[in-house]
Amino acid sequence: MSEEERSYDVVVLGAGSTGENVADVVVRGGLSAVLVEPELVGGECSYWACMPSKALLRGTEVLAEVRSVDGAKQAVTGEQDVEATLARRDSFTSNWDDSGQAEWVGSAGIDLLRGTGRLDGERTVVVTDADGGTVRLTARQAVVVCTGSEASTPPIDGLADVGAWTPREATSAKAAPARLLVLGGGYVGCEMATAWQALGSQVTVLQRGGRLLPGLEPQAGEAVAAALRDAGADVRLNTSVTGARRDGTEVVLTTEDGREFRGDEVLVAVGRRARTADIGADTVGLEPGEYLSVDSTLRVEGSSWLYGVGDVNGRRQLTHMGKYQARQAGAAIVARARGEETDTAPWSPFVATADDVATPSVVFTSPQVASVGRTAAQAEEEGLAHRVVEYPIGSIAGASLFADGYSGTAIAVVDTQREVLLGVTFVGPAVAELLHAATIAVVGEVPIGRLWHAVPAYPTISEIWLRLLEAYRG
Amino acid sequence: MSEEERSYDVVVLGAGSTGENVADVVVRGGLSAVLVEPELVGGECSYWACMPSKALLRGTEVLAEVRSVDGAKQAVTGEQDVEATLARRDSFTSNWDDSGQAEWVGSAGIDLLRGTGRLDGERTVVVTDADGGTVRLTARQAVVVCTGSEASTPPIDGLADVGAWTPREATSAKAAPARLLVLGGGYVGCEMATAWQALGSQVTVLQRGGRLLPGLEPQAGEAVAAALRDAGADVRLNTSVTGARRDGTEVVLTTEDGREFRGDEVLVAVGRRARTADIGADTVGLEPGEYLSVDSTLRVEGSSWLYGVGDVNGRRQLTHMGKYQARQAGAAIVARARGEETDTAPWSPFVATADDVATPSVVFTSPQVASVGRTAAQAEEEGLAHRVVEYPIGSIAGASLFADGYSGTAIAVVDTQREVLLGVTFVGPAVAELLHAATIAVVGEVPIGRLWHAVPAYPTISEIWLRLLEAYRG
Repeated sequence: MSEEERSYDVVVLGAGSTGENVADVVVRGGLSAVLVEPELVGGECSYWACMPSKALLRGTEVLAEVRSVDGAKQAVTGEQDVEATLARRDSFTSNWDDSGQAEWVGSAGIDLLRGTGRLDGERTVVVTDADGGTVRLTARQAVVVCTGSEASTPPIDGLADVGAWTPREATSAKAAPARLLVLGGGYVGCEMATAWQALGSQVTVLQRGGRLLPGLEPQAGEAVAAALRDAGADVRLNTSVTGARRDGTEVVLTTEDGREFRGDEVLVAVGRRARTADIGADTVGLEPGEYLSVDSTLRVEGSSWLYGVGDVNGRRQLTHMGKYQARQAGAAIVARARGEETDTAPWSPFVATADDVATPSVVFTSPQVASVGRTAAQAEEEGLAHRVVEYPIGSIAGASLFADGYSGTAIAVVDTQREVLLGVTFVGPAVAELLHAATIAVVGEVPIGRLWHAVPAYPTISEIWLRLLEAYRG
Repeated sequence: MSEEERSYDVVVLGAGSTGENVADVVVRGGLSAVLVEPELVGGECSYWACMPSKALLRGTEVLAEVRSVDGAKQAVTGEQDVEATLARRDSFTSNWDDSGQAEWVGSAGIDLLRGTGRLDGERTVVVTDADGGTVRLTARQAVVVCTGSEASTPPIDGLADVGAWTPREATSAKAAPARLLVLGGGYVGCEMATAWQALGSQVTVLQRGGRLLPGLEPQAGEAVAAALRDAGADVRLNTSVTGARRDGTEVVLTTEDGREFRGDEVLVAVGRRARTADIGADTVGLEPGEYLSVDSTLRVEGSSWLYGVGDVNGRRQLTHMGKYQARQAGAAIVARARGEETDTAPWSPFVATADDVATPSVVFTSPQVASVGRTAAQAEEEGLAHRVVEYPIGSIAGASLFADGYSGTAIAVVDTQREVLLGVTFVGPAVAELLHAATIAVVGEVPIGRLWHAVPAYPTISEIWLRLLEAYRG
């Protein structure tokens, strides 16, 4: 079988949301592009992460909300229909069928090649399909690696042999296991613990460190741990799992200090690693399995034509940041193809400045945790002159109208030299949509003095902004 | 009975939220202050407006949300408990008891005089209590009129004699009338129609003009009219009521073209007028019953000591804007008392710039309407170079996760010369908390180019921001 050869301006490895966005931007910019994908078009986010996890969580969230409003709660006399919730989750993943997204790719003027793409020296990618056929692609302008990341398995004795769930199985499971062990208390572990505990599992979270959600403000992990326990889950901090085995149908985890935890399934959610083991990294002088080291335009250090965008560069492993990087890198590729200057000053259209100073994230637990920018600890580490202010969201009129007994916290980290916000964290029910105000304030570097003129509408929960400003003024 | 005489730095007429905030700010600034109030401390917002209206609406809102999430909706087999909702409303008004707020006034170091305050020439207020006793107050620095506004009755034959509801009765009613006529389709009429239709009334809205919520983007009134009709209300546009009478226990409204509408109660919500008829305005050369004309620091034009803050100046009749004006005017009074310069440039700490260009408002109907800044029509009127972009919120992943069949619209008005936002409107379920992001963008004059770096977290409804930016780029 002779090898087909094709050339494009841009070859994109990986058709997750990041790859789709890179291809879309460069095609809109007049370049030709092909997406290479061995699995489902749409990637982790569409099928095994954001979409199914949020669909699993939404019913629980809204039922908690209605149960906290006297007068409305009397209408709730039944329980969540778990079958229907799982079916709704299935609909959000299109039943793991990517034909809709593949159709979008075509309509956007992007070519799609199904198969595994591997670099084969400069500007070259060889795609091998399921039948072993190959296509050799030449990229006139750029090869963009958007292969993302995958769950990593920690070096725990026996863990590789117990059939542990990765986040993929946790988001796509067809039924709630009776007992679910969750190894890891980061955002995936916390979200899945929240979801499955509500959907019928008895969940045990085993976290090696002293708190859940360790990268965020400590109040976040504390609130989520308390809420998980209130919901009936068992949350064990400072618990170091050192062994795993199957005992009949049971999975058994053993800890450093000799305790045992038994479940029907175990979800391993202790981190991710770059999906670069099988992309031909060595043919261009890179180390397989390592994150791609990129500059602010997401171009691989030292290369003129290779980019690493999204999870694969290890900067910020979030769907929305992958898409953001895709827009910035795409703009840079188009400008460079036209021979135009690409301004690499902070906040230019070609650089991903927000990666460094204004990355938003929402953990869809109950309570939710929404944060952007630096935590107090990060500001401290970076040696920035700052002051931290905190205010209970439950004392805001809009919050008490929203839910009887609303409990939550807002934390702002203020740069005391520049008088701008470095970061903001909200912990509480339904805080997800409060976040973008903070993101705009951080990104826009809006001075505190000006923020006083940004009046929150009464009585919304957003009035927390006024209290934070008052707390900062002292 | 001899007249008591007292002097303060600042005398505040009216202890609604605006007056409370003026007094608080000046006392924090080291001045002495007295609040004069003939009714309840806390004012309209606490007892007959924001708080009770939102409490009446919240149960309906959250039940609609849960009913739009498959899996969760199966738990809702009953109906809203109207008695419990009314009791919850009562708790938010503290059963119309102001002792809690009066206590706060004392704890804030503010004196409280219960009685009617009337100006009696320069820097002088005479307070008459319920027993006819008087106190003569002298204000060394300022008299601040925060008497607010009251519902106005339109000149319709017989309307004054039918015992019509004002917004006060509509928010404090002890039971849903079987049939409620609502005269006026502004935000009060729309909110109360939404509330009482859901709580058991058959509501008919009679609106003289061609749309509901006439000051907002037309899509807002259209969506609210459609939703009210879906809920079973009768919405009549272009309907000019010219007569009213009682017929037994029924109230009958007659229109210009001879039609009749019958109900058990009628709410008149066609506008407000300044509460300045009985404040001794004539003793300082002002016209009783008129709004106070003020400068950007909220000081009455031509006066060195008289301020008009909140509804009473007719600028923006919203609780949060009254409180904002209170902060700005309070700061100006303190600075002037210290002999300091008060910068009156836009966005200074002493002026209410947001009144003119960045007033946020939320209408808590179903769907909600949240808007800030200028509408397209206002930008047009002011001759500003602008472009309007619109995007359906329901196509955002976060919105479809939030509710099956989510329907809503976002509209942004962009200044094409300065490349900043002039105004934003969101129409849809639960958009209230989306608004503050827009308010910060408008107030902060954050350039569109920078807003591209404000990444909305996926999958939140806030991703509408990305779509609006894309729509603007074209």
